[in-house]
Amino acid sequence: MEDLKKKILEEGTAIGKDIVKVDGFLNHQIDARFLEKIGREFASRFRDLKIDRILTVEASGIAIAVGTAPFIGYPPVVFAKKAAPNTMKEGFYEAQAKSFTKGTVSRLIVSEKYLNEGENVLILDDFLAYGEASMALAEMIIKSGGKVAGIGAVIEKSFQGGADKLREKGYRVESLAQIEKIEDGVITFK
Amino acid sequence: MEDLKKKILEEGTAIGKDIVKVDGFLNHQIDARFLEKIGREFASRFRDLKIDRILTVEASGIAIAVGTAPFIGYPPVVFAKKAAPNTMKEGFYEAQAKSFTKGTVSRLIVSEKYLNEGENVLILDDFLAYGEASMALAEMIIKSGGKVAGIGAVIEKSFQGGADKLREKGYRVESLAQIEKIEDGVITFK
Repeated sequence: MEDLKKKILEEGTAIGKDIVKVDGFLNHQIDARFLEKIGREFASRFRDLKIDRILTVEASGIAIAVGTAPFIGYPPVVFAKKAAPNTMKEGFYEAQAKSFTKGTVSRLIVSEKYLNEGENVLILDDFLAYGEASMALAEMIIKSGGKVAGIGAVIEKSFQGGADKLREKGYRVESLAQIEKIEDGVITFK
Repeated sequence: MEDLKKKILEEGTAIGKDIVKVDGFLNHQIDARFLEKIGREFASRFRDLKIDRILTVEASGIAIAVGTAPFIGYPPVVFAKKAAPNTMKEGFYEAQAKSFTKGTVSRLIVSEKYLNEGENVLILDDFLAYGEASMALAEMIIKSGGKVAGIGAVIEKSFQGGADKLREKGYRVESLAQIEKIEDGVITFK
């Protein structure tokens, strides 16, 4: 997605060899107009699929998922929570995911009510790095008896291997921008 | 907003005297079509204001803010984070807010880059209970030299006093549904 690559180069910041900071339009400040372009692009990439539900993870996945839903027929959007709030006492699916950015392991939780047997579920997220979050979401979808329709990421950091790992497992992965390397403040796309 | 009250009664669950659970359409599973109605309603309530920016707090405020932005001219949406990730090392505003649902005190953080002097900032959130989150967001807006244009909540739990407290401080508060009490599993609107 050329618009996105341009925006990453113009507004993003490369930090060290691992981090690209896009908090000016994607995951702290959000450009809601650009979000519609992202939503349209995901809809186009996955247009051959029947999608019953979108699954993402709080917090920065929420805008992506909610911004995409209108372009694929408004399926229910569900976001995995990172801890069980005290209003969530009944059954839930859970899986663990390491957060690269925060350096922590999160316990991801989705209420059993919001993942159903036989559904085709599209996983969406802002970043795809080591693939830990997508793997955890896929695990919960499978536990529920659903099927992973595909995995969409706005920015794939290809060099961290998550996308390849997911593709090797047979998942269809669509990333709107693929970063091959980050070096000396320069971002190189695939 | 009559549609919303109906949806709360039909799909929400009252727990004890304090909690109304709306995780079927608002803060775990999200109904993206209904979100557009919410966005349109906020736009209508605040149509007399010039809004430069929307400020909310992760995680469940994000969908509300992103869903409202298109109806008020796509101002930048910013969400306060509940802890500083390791990509956020430069200056930020911070304020504390007690979370009623999780029984914890959160440290809310917004990068200094995304709140500016002289801006009119609209605060949006899913719930307005004790008003702790809105108060913290307002504090950060004021520190940045901006002005609180108004505070919008999808669901106000009036009996917990936050809305009154904010109105006494001179803020304009618009709640799309106002709950007067929760008792024996019955939700009563104002």
